[in-house]
Amino acid sequence: MDDDGGDDSGRYRIEHDSMGEVRVPADAKWRAQTQRAVENFPISGQRLERAHIEALARIKAAAAHVNAELGVVDQDIAQAIAESAGEVADGRWDDQFPVDVFQTGSGTSSNMNTNEVLATLATERLGRDVHPNDHVNASQSSNDVFPSSIHIAATAAVTHDLIPALTHLRAALERKAEEFADVVKSGRTHLMDATPVTLGQEFGGYAAQVAYGIERLRASLPRLAELPLGGTAVGTGINTPPGFSAAVIAEVARTTGLPLTEARNHFEAQGARDGIVETSGQLRTIAVGLTKIANDLRWMASGPRTGLAEISLPDLQPGSSIMPGKVNPVIPEAVLMVAAQVTGNDATVAAAGAAGNFELNVMLPVIARNVLESIRLLANVARLLADRTVDGITANRERAREYAESSPSVVTPLNKYIGYEEAAKVAKKSLAERRTIREVVLEGGYVERGDLTVEQLDEALDVLRMTRP
Amino acid sequence: MDDDGGDDSGRYRIEHDSMGEVRVPADAKWRAQTQRAVENFPISGQRLERAHIEALARIKAAAAHVNAELGVVDQDIAQAIAESAGEVADGRWDDQFPVDVFQTGSGTSSNMNTNEVLATLATERLGRDVHPNDHVNASQSSNDVFPSSIHIAATAAVTHDLIPALTHLRAALERKAEEFADVVKSGRTHLMDATPVTLGQEFGGYAAQVAYGIERLRASLPRLAELPLGGTAVGTGINTPPGFSAAVIAEVARTTGLPLTEARNHFEAQGARDGIVETSGQLRTIAVGLTKIANDLRWMASGPRTGLAEISLPDLQPGSSIMPGKVNPVIPEAVLMVAAQVTGNDATVAAAGAAGNFELNVMLPVIARNVLESIRLLANVARLLADRTVDGITANRERAREYAESSPSVVTPLNKYIGYEEAAKVAKKSLAERRTIREVVLEGGYVERGDLTVEQLDEALDVLRMTRP
Amino acid sequence: MDDDGGDDSGRYRIEHDSMGEVRVPADAKWRAQTQRAVENFPISGQRLERAHIEALARIKAAAAHVNAELGVVDQDIAQAIAESAGEVADGRWDDQFPVDVFQTGSGTSSNMNTNEVLATLATERLGRDVHPNDHVNASQSSNDVFPSSIHIAATAAVTHDLIPALTHLRAALERKAEEFADVVKSGRTHLMDATPVTLGQEFGGYAAQVAYGIERLRASLPRLAELPLGGTAVGTGINTPPGFSAAVIAEVARTTGLPLTEARNHFEAQGARDGIVETSGQLRTIAVGLTKIANDLRWMASGPRTGLAEISLPDLQPGSSIMPGKVNPVIPEAVLMVAAQVTGNDATVAAAGAAGNFELNVMLPVIARNVLESIRLLANVARLLADRTVDGITANRERAREYAESSPSVVTPLNKYIGYEEAAKVAKKSLAERRTIREVVLEGGYVERGDLTVEQLDEALDVLRMTRP
Amino acid sequence: MDDDGGDDSGRYRIEHDSMGEVRVPADAKWRAQTQRAVENFPISGQRLERAHIEALARIKAAAAHVNAELGVVDQDIAQAIAESAGEVADGRWDDQFPVDVFQTGSGTSSNMNTNEVLATLATERLGRDVHPNDHVNASQSSNDVFPSSIHIAATAAVTHDLIPALTHLRAALERKAEEFADVVKSGRTHLMDATPVTLGQEFGGYAAQVAYGIERLRASLPRLAELPLGGTAVGTGINTPPGFSAAVIAEVARTTGLPLTEARNHFEAQGARDGIVETSGQLRTIAVGLTKIANDLRWMASGPRTGLAEISLPDLQPGSSIMPGKVNPVIPEAVLMVAAQVTGNDATVAAAGAAGNFELNVMLPVIARNVLESIRLLANVARLLADRTVDGITANRERAREYAESSPSVVTPLNKYIGYEEAAKVAKKSLAERRTIREVVLEGGYVERGDLTVEQLDEALDVLRMTRP
Repeated sequence: MDDDGGDDSGRYRIEHDSMGEVRVPADAKWRAQTQRAVENFPISGQRLERAHIEALARIKAAAAHVNAELGVVDQDIAQAIAESAGEVADGRWDDQFPVDVFQTGSGTSSNMNTNEVLATLATERLGRDVHPNDHVNASQSSNDVFPSSIHIAATAAVTHDLIPALTHLRAALERKAEEFADVVKSGRTHLMDATPVTLGQEFGGYAAQVAYGIERLRASLPRLAELPLGGTAVGTGINTPPGFSAAVIAEVARTTGLPLTEARNHFEAQGARDGIVETSGQLRTIAVGLTKIANDLRWMASGPRTGLAEISLPDLQPGSSIMPGKVNPVIPEAVLMVAAQVTGNDATVAAAGAAGNFELNVMLPVIARNVLESIRLLANVARLLADRTVDGITANRERAREYAESSPSVVTPLNKYIGYEEAAKVAKKSLAERRTIREVVLEGGYVERGDLTVEQLDEALDVLRMTRP
Repeated sequence: MDDDGGDDSGRYRIEHDSMGEVRVPADAKWRAQTQRAVENFPISGQRLERAHIEALARIKAAAAHVNAELGVVDQDIAQAIAESAGEVADGRWDDQFPVDVFQTGSGTSSNMNTNEVLATLATERLGRDVHPNDHVNASQSSNDVFPSSIHIAATAAVTHDLIPALTHLRAALERKAEEFADVVKSGRTHLMDATPVTLGQEFGGYAAQVAYGIERLRASLPRLAELPLGGTAVGTGINTPPGFSAAVIAEVARTTGLPLTEARNHFEAQGARDGIVETSGQLRTIAVGLTKIANDLRWMASGPRTGLAEISLPDLQPGSSIMPGKVNPVIPEAVLMVAAQVTGNDATVAAAGAAGNFELNVMLPVIARNVLESIRLLANVARLLADRTVDGITANRERAREYAESSPSVVTPLNKYIGYEEAAKVAKKSLAERRTIREVVLEGGYVERGDLTVEQLDEALDVLRMTRP
Repeated sequence: MDDDGGDDSGRYRIEHDSMGEVRVPADAKWRAQTQRAVENFPISGQRLERAHIEALARIKAAAAHVNAELGVVDQDIAQAIAESAGEVADGRWDDQFPVDVFQTGSGTSSNMNTNEVLATLATERLGRDVHPNDHVNASQSSNDVFPSSIHIAATAAVTHDLIPALTHLRAALERKAEEFADVVKSGRTHLMDATPVTLGQEFGGYAAQVAYGIERLRASLPRLAELPLGGTAVGTGINTPPGFSAAVIAEVARTTGLPLTEARNHFEAQGARDGIVETSGQLRTIAVGLTKIANDLRWMASGPRTGLAEISLPDLQPGSSIMPGKVNPVIPEAVLMVAAQVTGNDATVAAAGAAGNFELNVMLPVIARNVLESIRLLANVARLLADRTVDGITANRERAREYAESSPSVVTPLNKYIGYEEAAKVAKKSLAERRTIREVVLEGGYVERGDLTVEQLDEALDVLRMTRP
Repeated sequence: MDDDGGDDSGRYRIEHDSMGEVRVPADAKWRAQTQRAVENFPISGQRLERAHIEALARIKAAAAHVNAELGVVDQDIAQAIAESAGEVADGRWDDQFPVDVFQTGSGTSSNMNTNEVLATLATERLGRDVHPNDHVNASQSSNDVFPSSIHIAATAAVTHDLIPALTHLRAALERKAEEFADVVKSGRTHLMDATPVTLGQEFGGYAAQVAYGIERLRASLPRLAELPLGGTAVGTGINTPPGFSAAVIAEVARTTGLPLTEARNHFEAQGARDGIVETSGQLRTIAVGLTKIANDLRWMASGPRTGLAEISLPDLQPGSSIMPGKVNPVIPEAVLMVAAQVTGNDATVAAAGAAGNFELNVMLPVIARNVLESIRLLANVARLLADRTVDGITANRERAREYAESSPSVVTPLNKYIGYEEAAKVAKKSLAERRTIREVVLEGGYVERGDLTVEQLDEALDVLRMTRP
C-alpha cells in the first residue's frame, strides 16, 4: 500500500489493538479494527447501505442514553456519543465507513467501525477519551447489534420509502383506471382474442396488485420489526443490565417512528434470520407483480405500426435518429430489470438465511446488502413508473374499440337472434375477411330477413356492455 | 399408439368434438377433449395432485347446486353431478384423470377432464345425458375455475395438513426445550467457542422458528383464500348469473371448513397469481428455517468420536455393517432435501407467476404442481422430524457440560477476582494445555493467594448461571 | 400399518437385519433394509427415475462380472446376479423399488434396495443363497455406487435422449428457416417497429440457439461422465481390489455406449457434485433459450384479430366453444412451463450441490431427481415442439409484408433521394395516417418533382433487400 | 433539480437533441442524451462496471480505425476518437459515465454516453467538431455494440482476472495437499465417523474442484467470446460496410489478447443472451464448489475447544476482547457470502436472459451488472482465500491422528485376526469408554492369547496405510 521509503508520518498515524500496531490514514476517524478490515476485505468495493449506517448510529445513540440512565456510562460521555451518533445517522460521516460489505459474516467489522468513529468524534467533542468498546459498545455485542441494525434499516425503508412509493404508484394506476373506464378493448387470454374488457378494468387490476403488495409488506412487518437487541453474544443476554434492551428499543422506536419490538425468543433472533427471508420473499412477490404490469404496458404500447398500439407511453428520450415516432418503453424496461434484480437478490437472501449454525447466522452483511438494495430499487422504480410512465399514458381509443369489435368472440350475444350455427359462420367469415362482425351481419341479409333490427344488432354488439356484469 | 391392424372395437370407442372424431379407451369415463390432451402432452407422466382433483370436484359439486337454485341446470341433473363430484372429491376416480400436469397453461384440459368425467358419471347415475359443458361447466370458465381450484387446494393443504404438522413439530421441540432446560453447553458463534447456552434454549429457538412459520402462513392465507371464481373468461363475469360465484364460494367454504372469499378484484385475480407466489415464498421461508434446525441437529449429533456428539438421535436403520455405532441422521437429511426441493419449487412458482399477460396467467398447472408439492413435502417431513427424530433425542449431558466448562470464554466472570489480564493468561493456558479453566485457576495459586475462595471460583464458573440473565 | 389382529402370515414374511426383525410383504423381492426405508420415508410418494434404476442395475451387472474375474465372487453367483441385473435394467422389476426419493442423503437405501432385489432374484435363479452385501455389493460402497449411478443415468439421458431431441428440434427449425427465407416482416426491438428481417432469419436464429444448446451439453459431458466408482467409503478405495473400478467402468461404458471415465480425483468425486451442478446449469441455459423461442412463437401467432398474427400454429385441440378460430398455443405454453420447472429444478440442484461436507455430499437423491427430471422434460417437450408446432407453422406472408412496409423505419433508404428531412416528414405522415411509406411518397409529388422515379422508389422500398447485407 | 431562480449560466450549458434543449453541467464531457438518461433513471445510483466502460471504449477505438480505413470517417477524426477512446479505456474519464445501470434495456443510454464523451474529447483534441452519432457511432448500433461490450468485458474478466485467481488458489491448495500428505485423520460421511483419509487428500480434492472450475470456464469461453458486432439494428447488418465487423473484432482481439470471434448467427446473437447465461451458470457452479471448500475449512478449524480443531487458520483480526484465542474464520465467511451473491446474481441473469423478444433482449444492463460483478467478486475472494487463509493453514496433527485412531471404523482390518464378532465387541467397547481401539485390544488379552502380535496390531491399525489403496 505504501512503498514510499521516505517519511509518511503526515499521512498515517499508528493505532494499536490486541494484535499489535496498525497504520491508519492520518485524518481517518476510524481506528485499528476498521483499518484491519479494510485491508482484509478488498472484495467488492461496496460499502454498507446508507440506511444501514443510519440504523447502526440510531442504536448507538439510544444505547448511550440508556447506558447513562443505568449508570453504565458517564452522562457526559453518553451525551457526546449520542450527539456524534446523530451526525452519523444524518449522513455527515459516511466517508468514514470504508469497510467492504463482504467481510466477517457477523458484521463485527462494521459494528467496530461504528464504535471507533463514534469514539473519535465523541472524544473530539468532549475533549477526553471515549473508548469504542467500553463506552460506545457498552452493554452490546456485534451479535445482537448488527442484525438489529438490519431489521431497523429494513423496517424503516419498507415503512418510510417503499410503502409510500407503492401507494403513490397505486394512486396513479387508479386514476388511469377511472380515466379509462369506458375505453373498451379486446380481452386476451393465451395472447389470443377473447371477450371485451375495458382498459380501466386492466389498470384497476394493476392497482389491486400494487395494493396487495402493500398488504404483503404489512403482513410481514411484525416479524421484521422484532429486534435481537438484548441477546448480546449468544442470545442469553450475558453482560447486559436488566431493562437495557427494552429501553434502547423504545427510544429507537420513538426517534424513528417505527413499530419496533424486542425479540420474543432471543435464540431464534440470533440463530436464524427467517424474518428477513420472509420480507425478501414479499419483495420478490411485489417484483413478480410489477413484471406483469410492465410487460402488459410494453405490449399495449408496442408498435406503433407493427404492434398492438392500444396505448401510448410518454416520450422520455429520443429513439433512433432514423426511425421517427419510435418511443422505447424505457421505464417499463427498467422496472423489469429491477424485478429481475430483486428476484436474484431474494435468492441470495434465502441461501444466506439457510446458512446459519447454532447461535449465529454469519451471512449478515450479504443479507443486509441484498434486502436493503431490493427495497430501495423497488421504491425508486415504483415512483418513476408512476410519474414518468403511468401518469402520461394515453389511450388509443379508436384502435382499442376496433380490436374489441373485431374479436370473433363478440359474436356471442347474437346467438339468441340468429342461432349458434349462423353466429359461428359469421365469426368465421369475419375472421377470414378481416372485417368486423357488424359488417358481416349487415351484409349477410339477417336484418332484411327480419332476424334482428339494426338497433338490436348494435345493442347486442355493444362491446362496452359486455364488460359489465 | 395402436398399430393393431385388426379389430379393436372392444378396446376403444369413438367420441366427437368440434375438431372431429377421437378414439377413447372403451372403459374410460373421460371423453374427447381429455383424450386429445392425453395425446398432446406426453411430457412428464405426472398428473395433478390429489388435493387439486379434490378441489376441482368440490367446485363442480357446489356449482351444480347453485346452478340448480338459479334455474340454470335442472335439479336432477345438478344432483347427479354433485353426487358424482362427491365421489371424485373422495378420490374414487383418480385413475380417470390422465392428463399430464404439463399441458395447456390455463389448465383447460384438466377442467374439461373433470367436466367429462362428471358428465359420464352423472349420465350413468341419472340414465339421461348430462353434458360436460352445458351442465357440468355451466356458468363457469376454465379461466376462473382452474386458478380457483389451485387456491382452494393450497388453502386446504396449508390449513388441514401443513399447519397441523408444524404445530406437531413445534410441540415436540418445546417438550425437548423443557427436558433440556438445564443441559448446559458451549454456545458457538462463527462455529467457534462462545459463552454458554442450554440445549433447552436452543430447542426453544427451533420451536420459535416453527411457530413463526405458522404465523407466516396465517399472515398470507387471506390472499391465498381469495378465489377468481365468478370472473369467467376474462374477469368481467360474462355469462355468469348474478349471485353465482358468491353462493358457490360459500358452499365450498362450508364443505371444506376453509375461510374462502371471492376476489376483491377479478382482473387481478385472473391476470396475476401473486397470492400463490406469496404463499410459495412463505413455504420457502419455512424451508429455510428447517434447514437451520436440521443442520444444527446433524452437527450436534455428529461423531460419535470425531464430531461434536452433544446429542444422540434415535437409530432408524442400520449404518454400515463394518462401523458399529454409526447412526446416520437420515431424517434431518431428508428434511434438508425437502428444503432444497421447496426452494427450487419456489423459484419455479415465481418464474411462472411473473409470466402472465393481460387477462390470464397461462402457467397455472406448473404453479399448482410446485406449490402443492411443497406443502405436502413440508407437512410430511415435519411430522417425521417430530416423531422419528426430535422425540427420541437424548442429550449427552456430561459432554455438553465439558464443552461449556472448557470454552475459554467462561473465564469472563473471573475478571472481578483476578483482573482481566490474569484472566486472559488463565484462558490462554487453558487453551494451550487443553484443560479446564477451573483446573488452571486451582493450580495457579489464586486461591492460596487469597484472590478468591474455591466456593467463589465454583460460583463464578457455574456455566449454567451464565445462561440466565 | 397393520391393524389386523388376526393371522397375516400369508401377507408378510419376516426378514432380519442387524437391528432385528422386519415384516416384509410376502411376495416382495426386497428385504429388511428396503422395508425399513419404506417405513422411514413416507414423504413424497415418488420413486427413483426409471433411468436411475437402470443405471444402478448396470453397475451391479458389471460389478458382478468383474468380481468374478477378480475372484471376489463365485462365477455362478456372479452370473446369476448379472442376469438378474439385466432384467432390472430392462425395467422388468420397477415395482420392486418402493423407496421414496426423499430418503437418506447418500442413497444407501436405494443401493440396498437394488442389492436386496438382485440377491433375491439371483437366489431364485441359482437355487442357492446370494447375499445382498457380500455378493451383490462386493467391492462397492453406497458412497461410490450411488453418485456413479446418477452420473451414468444423466450421461445416458443427455446422450441418448436430450441431444437427439434437440437435434430433431433444430432440424425442424432449420427447415422452417429455409421455407420462410423470403417472408419479409418488420423487425422488432424494444417491441417497437424496426427495420425489416425475414421470418426465415428468425427461425435460423432459433435453430442456432438450439444448436448451441447441444454444444453446451457436449462441453460439459466430460465432467458429467466422470464416475466416483472405486472410491468406496471415503474416496480412498478401501476394500476394493486393484483394477476393479477401471474394469467395471469399461464394461458399463461398453454396454451403454457412453464415454464414461473414472474420476481423476476420488476425493473431489465423492465430496462434491459440481459436475452435476454444471450440467444442470447447462439444462437451465437451454430452458432459457426455449423460453425465448416459445414466447416469440406465441406472440407471432397472437390474435388472430387483436394480435400480431404473422404466423399460424397448427390446431391441436378445440379452443372455446363460443370463440371460433381460437387456437391456443398450447405446446409453446407447455414449453414455457417445462422451462420454469427446469429453472426451479436447477435451483434445487445448486442448493443441494453446495451442501456437501467432508467426504460425502448427502443430498444425492434430490440431486438425482431434479437433474434427471429436467433432462426428461426437456427432451419430451423439444420433440413435441418440433412435431406438433414447428412442423405445422404457416406464415401469413401478406400480413408480414404489410408490417415490413408499414414500419416507419423503411424510410431510411430514401435519404439519398429526398434528403433526411423530407424522409422524416414522410415517416411521420405515414405514421399519423396509418398508411404505407410508398403511398405517402407517391402522393407527395416527389416523383412528379423528379426526385426519384417510381422504379427507384420501389427498389429503395424493397423491404426484402433491406434484410440482406 | 435546480430551484435557484438566479443566474446559473456558469454551472450549466445548453445542449440540444431531437426532443429539444437540455441543461447539462457546464464542465461535463457528456451531452444531451446522457443528461436525459441521468434524469430519467435515478434508480440504483450504481454505474456500469469499470471493465464494461473499458470494453465500450475498445470497440469505439477499433471502430474509428476501421471506419477510417473503409473511408466512412476522416482519418484525423478517427485518430482523435481512437486516442480519446484509449484514455477512456484506461479509466481516465470514468467520472464522465454517470448513467445508472438500471436504464433502457438496450443500454442505448450508455452507448450514447460513450459516443458523446468521445465526441467531446475528440473535438477538444482535434479542434473541430466530432459528432457522437455520425462519427463515433458510425457503422454501429447500440443493439450490436452494447451486447458486444458485455461479452468483451466478461471474456476479459474471466481470462485476465478470474482464471488467474483460481489458478493461484489451486496452487495454494495443492501446496497444502503436499504438505499435509501424511496428516491422517478420520474421514466423515453424513458427518459421522468413517474410515481414515489424509488431510492432504482432502486439500487435493479441493484443488481438483478449483481446477475443474477453470475447465468449466474454458469450456464455455468459445460462446462467450462470440460478438454480435456487425448485426447493427436487428441482426441484418443494415448500414454497415462489408468487412467492418470482422476488422473491428480482429483489432479488439489484438489489443486485448482475447480469442474474440464474430457471431456465427447474428439473429441468435442479438435476440438471445444464452452465452452469458451459460457463463453465469459456470460461475454459479464455481461458487457452489467454493461453498463446499469454505464450509469444510470452517468446520475443520472450529473450536478450538468445542469444535473439531483439526486445523488452525491464520489470525487476521482480533476476535472478542473477552474470549482469548477466538479466531473467526472471516475469509471463509466472506467466501460463503460471495458464493451466495453469485448464486443470486445468476438467478437474475437467467431471468433476464429468458426475457428477450424478437430481435433484441432488452435486459442487457442488468445482465452486465450481475455477470461482471460475479466474476470480479469470485476473482477477488479466490485470491484472498489463497493468500490470507489457505497459505497460513497449519494442521493439528496429533488431534487429527487421535480422531483417525478413535474412529470405530478402524477396527475393520482386525477381522482377519480376531474375527468380525470380536472386532465388533472391541469397537463397541471403544465407543462406550471413549478410548482407542488399540488400547481396548491390548487390554482385551488378544495379544496374550496369541491372536496377534503387538507388531501385527500396530500394522493393522496403521491408519495412514488405510488411506492408501
